[in-house]
Amino acid sequence: MHKIKFETDYQEGASPEILERLISTNLEQTSGYGEDPHCQHAKDLIRREINRPDSAVYFMAGGTQTNTTVIKHLLTPCEGVISVSTGHINVHESGAIESTGHKVLTLQGHNGLLNAEDLRAYMEAFNADPTNSHMVQPGMVYISYSSELGTIYTKSMLTEIKRVCENFGLKLFVDGARLGTGLTSEASDMNIKDIANLCDAFYIGGTKNGALFGEAVVFPEPERINLKHFTTIIKQQGGLLAKGRLLGIQFEVLFEDGLFYRNAKHANTQAMKIKRAFIEKGIPFLIDSPTNQQFPILTRQQNETLSENFSYELWQPLNDGKSAVRFCTSWATSDSNINELVKAIQKLS
Amino acid sequence: MHKIKFETDYQEGASPEILERLISTNLEQTSGYGEDPHCQHAKDLIRREINRPDSAVYFMAGGTQTNTTVIKHLLTPCEGVISVSTGHINVHESGAIESTGHKVLTLQGHNGLLNAEDLRAYMEAFNADPTNSHMVQPGMVYISYSSELGTIYTKSMLTEIKRVCENFGLKLFVDGARLGTGLTSEASDMNIKDIANLCDAFYIGGTKNGALFGEAVVFPEPERINLKHFTTIIKQQGGLLAKGRLLGIQFEVLFEDGLFYRNAKHANTQAMKIKRAFIEKGIPFLIDSPTNQQFPILTRQQNETLSENFSYELWQPLNDGKSAVRFCTSWATSDSNINELVKAIQKLS
Amino acid sequence: MHKIKFETDYQEGASPEILERLISTNLEQTSGYGEDPHCQHAKDLIRREINRPDSAVYFMAGGTQTNTTVIKHLLTPCEGVISVSTGHINVHESGAIESTGHKVLTLQGHNGLLNAEDLRAYMEAFNADPTNSHMVQPGMVYISYSSELGTIYTKSMLTEIKRVCENFGLKLFVDGARLGTGLTSEASDMNIKDIANLCDAFYIGGTKNGALFGEAVVFPEPERINLKHFTTIIKQQGGLLAKGRLLGIQFEVLFEDGLFYRNAKHANTQAMKIKRAFIEKGIPFLIDSPTNQQFPILTRQQNETLSENFSYELWQPLNDGKSAVRFCTSWATSDSNINELVKAIQKLS
Amino acid sequence: MHKIKFETDYQEGASPEILERLISTNLEQTSGYGEDPHCQHAKDLIRREINRPDSAVYFMAGGTQTNTTVIKHLLTPCEGVISVSTGHINVHESGAIESTGHKVLTLQGHNGLLNAEDLRAYMEAFNADPTNSHMVQPGMVYISYSSELGTIYTKSMLTEIKRVCENFGLKLFVDGARLGTGLTSEASDMNIKDIANLCDAFYIGGTKNGALFGEAVVFPEPERINLKHFTTIIKQQGGLLAKGRLLGIQFEVLFEDGLFYRNAKHANTQAMKIKRAFIEKGIPFLIDSPTNQQFPILTRQQNETLSENFSYELWQPLNDGKSAVRFCTSWATSDSNINELVKAIQKLS
Repeated sequence: MHKIKFETDYQEGASPEILERLISTNLEQTSGYGEDPHCQHAKDLIRREINRPDSAVYFMAGGTQTNTTVIKHLLTPCEGVISVSTGHINVHESGAIESTGHKVLTLQGHNGLLNAEDLRAYMEAFNADPTNSHMVQPGMVYISYSSELGTIYTKSMLTEIKRVCENFGLKLFVDGARLGTGLTSEASDMNIKDIANLCDAFYIGGTKNGALFGEAVVFPEPERINLKHFTTIIKQQGGLLAKGRLLGIQFEVLFEDGLFYRNAKHANTQAMKIKRAFIEKGIPFLIDSPTNQQFPILTRQQNETLSENFSYELWQPLNDGKSAVRFCTSWATSDSNINELVKAIQKLS
Repeated sequence: MHKIKFETDYQEGASPEILERLISTNLEQTSGYGEDPHCQHAKDLIRREINRPDSAVYFMAGGTQTNTTVIKHLLTPCEGVISVSTGHINVHESGAIESTGHKVLTLQGHNGLLNAEDLRAYMEAFNADPTNSHMVQPGMVYISYSSELGTIYTKSMLTEIKRVCENFGLKLFVDGARLGTGLTSEASDMNIKDIANLCDAFYIGGTKNGALFGEAVVFPEPERINLKHFTTIIKQQGGLLAKGRLLGIQFEVLFEDGLFYRNAKHANTQAMKIKRAFIEKGIPFLIDSPTNQQFPILTRQQNETLSENFSYELWQPLNDGKSAVRFCTSWATSDSNINELVKAIQKLS
Repeated sequence: MHKIKFETDYQEGASPEILERLISTNLEQTSGYGEDPHCQHAKDLIRREINRPDSAVYFMAGGTQTNTTVIKHLLTPCEGVISVSTGHINVHESGAIESTGHKVLTLQGHNGLLNAEDLRAYMEAFNADPTNSHMVQPGMVYISYSSELGTIYTKSMLTEIKRVCENFGLKLFVDGARLGTGLTSEASDMNIKDIANLCDAFYIGGTKNGALFGEAVVFPEPERINLKHFTTIIKQQGGLLAKGRLLGIQFEVLFEDGLFYRNAKHANTQAMKIKRAFIEKGIPFLIDSPTNQQFPILTRQQNETLSENFSYELWQPLNDGKSAVRFCTSWATSDSNINELVKAIQKLS
Repeated sequence: MHKIKFETDYQEGASPEILERLISTNLEQTSGYGEDPHCQHAKDLIRREINRPDSAVYFMAGGTQTNTTVIKHLLTPCEGVISVSTGHINVHESGAIESTGHKVLTLQGHNGLLNAEDLRAYMEAFNADPTNSHMVQPGMVYISYSSELGTIYTKSMLTEIKRVCENFGLKLFVDGARLGTGLTSEASDMNIKDIANLCDAFYIGGTKNGALFGEAVVFPEPERINLKHFTTIIKQQGGLLAKGRLLGIQFEVLFEDGLFYRNAKHANTQAMKIKRAFIEKGIPFLIDSPTNQQFPILTRQQNETLSENFSYELWQPLNDGKSAVRFCTSWATSDSNINELVKAIQKLS
């Protein structure tokens, strides 16, 4: 029997609306590499959404590709990117950033989040170090929203990080692979305009929010960044999709009437049902996450029971046979699957 | 009015069979990154097709990504890759190969093809050069089938190249972005098994042959190449698709019952109609291509006339206002579009 | 008035014996790039010193160059190098390792030293991590002898690290920029043969031990490492000195009759005088170092007093205005300078 | 018996004046990494020599290191450097430029020299190419003075190249490994101020002109180039000498009273004696070189005769057993060695 999967937020295909649009546009003839009307239209929709008609928008196929291309473009050769040690670029991208010649400079995170004061202290110590010309120069900051641990920044936290970045001449880049679940979380006090206002670059994740694949990189103030050859850099990094319109079509559907938010909200809603079930059972969490990733701490017995019918990710082995595990929901998580899981949780001893 | 496009072989979406399969599998739950049954099945189909049950198959999303990842993996840091100067990696990949630290060592091509004797002479001169420890070491050969100029190698040509490679310890990699049109060309005396027998690695292009996107890299004799961490390298290069099954599903459809060949044959058939029309009109060609790219030489007047209703690529400006241009067909090129073009050619003066 | 400098171990020129030899050989005609009799002879001397007639020896001009070239050569593209976080490659080489595409994977050090158990735990956790194919693969271990904090490994510590490396398929590289002071420390229970027996590669530092410049890289068992193109890699990294014989001549002088050890022993002897003076004064140390770097903790007042006539490095600001500072001695540190410093220490309040 | 060597211009040590200065300064205590009075003074001497008090000067140990560091610093990731195909960076630096991610874009040279018209035509074709966003962007031009073939640019040739560079937004970098012999050639109509006026960066070669090693990089107009972190880049490339003063001391000696020019003039004078001897014998040349490299074409018989007592470089095998060979002179080439060679040439049949 197949287990019900809660492993990741990319274990199904795409929102039906997206597939339908791919079919209805299939025989249109368009130029390649994103030079097509769908991409233009999708970019306009995104510019309108963030209320920045002059912003620059580019599409790429995946998150690692996007992080690598943006970071490589924003840094000079002797600069590195600051990230919390749990940041995706530091752990799970196979050294993609380093493969472009740049060091990831790590700070200790707080449940996956960067603290503005830690950043300030780091920069002050760096600037005071008489040997710093022999060190990688901090050039930018990378954060994730929502983070790899499901947590999110408040507007004041992000504002403070931005202020420190400006004080020290650092660019700020927001990895939005899970931007949707961050923005639609009940714990969020930001909208996408706030994100655009508080960073130098961010991306809007499609892959984990109902697209077949696709991320939209946004430079809210392109006049501050030389983007003349950014397409060439995307191509150099292998990120320029030949049938680029596929990305445009998907982001058109996501942003025409709010599907992007509906998908993410659905994922969060389903996750909260899981969260509540664990709480009611008195099962503790590794992290208190308000988004679509939930990290309960299971005993060995609980783990064995649940894993009979459900698959999810082992996150971190703990003492006494306990483990933190991850349950992930998505735009596609069905009520029936949630009900099965909730029932199983309720039956745990 | 829209012009009829003959610009590229990726200006439409995907074969309807592929879209249908994406729909029918859409809500299946699978693990990510190619660890799913569709990818396994598609790999089996390809292994069967080339009659090498032990070969290693990997999927990636695009050609530049694939070339870069394979070449980076096959070379050591001081090695370079030999290519004809018209090779895609040398001209149109924005320096992706160099971005991984490797030089493209160029030889003069012959209508886009590498000559085995030129290769031998190059290697003999290199080995005889007393300063060669200060030079980039030739580590592998890159060729395209069909080539960037629409031409193809005969079996004896490829066999001879392979022999020279073996003599000099060079690996041989075949870029098969247009493998389908090469193999199904009436001028071809090879099948896909021959390709697999005559190289160390090749890829089967899906993007230009009816897939939304996707290339299948094949290492026919994986025991000769350390592939232990090849997935990590794909990830590092940003080429590991989260919803990896999308690639598996597409290659399943392409290789279940010969769609891969039917698509390519259709492209060639349509291209031959264009070729014949130009020949009958007495219009010369830059290159005699037996595949889906055709390079007629047009006068300024002919160019102006045709470009009113058709779009195609300016390939190379020539003397007297003449230009070599490129007409490209694909799996999707309709009879009616071909008829329009043929009629327009016949009316040229 | 000039201050007496204890800033570094490279603040003077070279041992007079070395300068004399440069003069006496100056007009000899030799081939470039290390293809000369002096380099051959110096390599033989080193091979004899480590009692490994088949080992491979190469010369380079500086430490960062050497570390980068060796590490780049020993790793495949998806591999990283493990180092304690205070390791020179992680802090003070401006990201040279990352500039070649490789991540430095950091472990917490213990007074600058790597603990074998920490390494084992790290590798076990890595191997147990189901997502490790998306992570940088640990490929080698980098340690320094003596370390950046003046400390040294015992033979049993190094043996244990080597054992863990072998268990997990990691190569072991010893940065010997300060090999001399490590080996001649009274706390050392190893000789250069032990070093050669317990690693896959190490280098013998000349720059910090009486040479104008120069490091000798040794691969004790070259049959285990493909060195066919190592000269080409040195050249690619800009490390192949045109007048390569300058390196050979210097290492000839250093290893003909033990100058290498005499120089280092002198540095240690002078450092111990400084250490004793601080101890007698009751001034504490950040680290208990048995080599030529000493790290006393000074009050603000002590610091101000000493810095009137002496220059040394601020190592780490501490609470209450205290600072850990570094005094460094070398082959060239004179008795009179030591006496001045010791007297000044004795007068501190 | 030893042969007399005319292989390279770095087969002896250093000018005696340089060795003497190393001895007299040997026990001075200075800070490392070029932060010492000798480097400051040497930089001032160079600034005075080129009459640009605001120019930026840096020292590095060797030519490949210098070329790589400067080119890496001046280019953005998608840019390449234009060079004639015989350029040192394209042939004899083991792919050092590509190892930093940049393509060398080659043009056909004319006896080792770049033609301004070829450059203009290349740039016009590039700009007219509709696919150029998928191509490496030309970012700078690299030329050598004197060239790898001993030839030199006239002032009008260099002025014209500079003009084309400015028209197309290309930076211009002059590799001056053999700047001395270029400037002191009787065929030269330029001085070092002209070089400084006509490029964005150049370097003054010490290694091939009487120093033990060392190159001085000059940015005549540093306000046009962001050099804030250039020292960090030098360190990252492994080019920051710990005892940096060694470079300062050498360039002090070279530029205090014209030793740099005297050394180079001597090399040229000796080379002209060789040239004249071959001319008088009726022996032809591959290239007509006015500097210290001479490329006569020898018959097999002549080659066998001369190589009995002299060593020189085989440059290029030609038909009928003939070979172009290279004789190289330097600051150290003695009259007696020249006389021996001239006599041997006169005796050739």
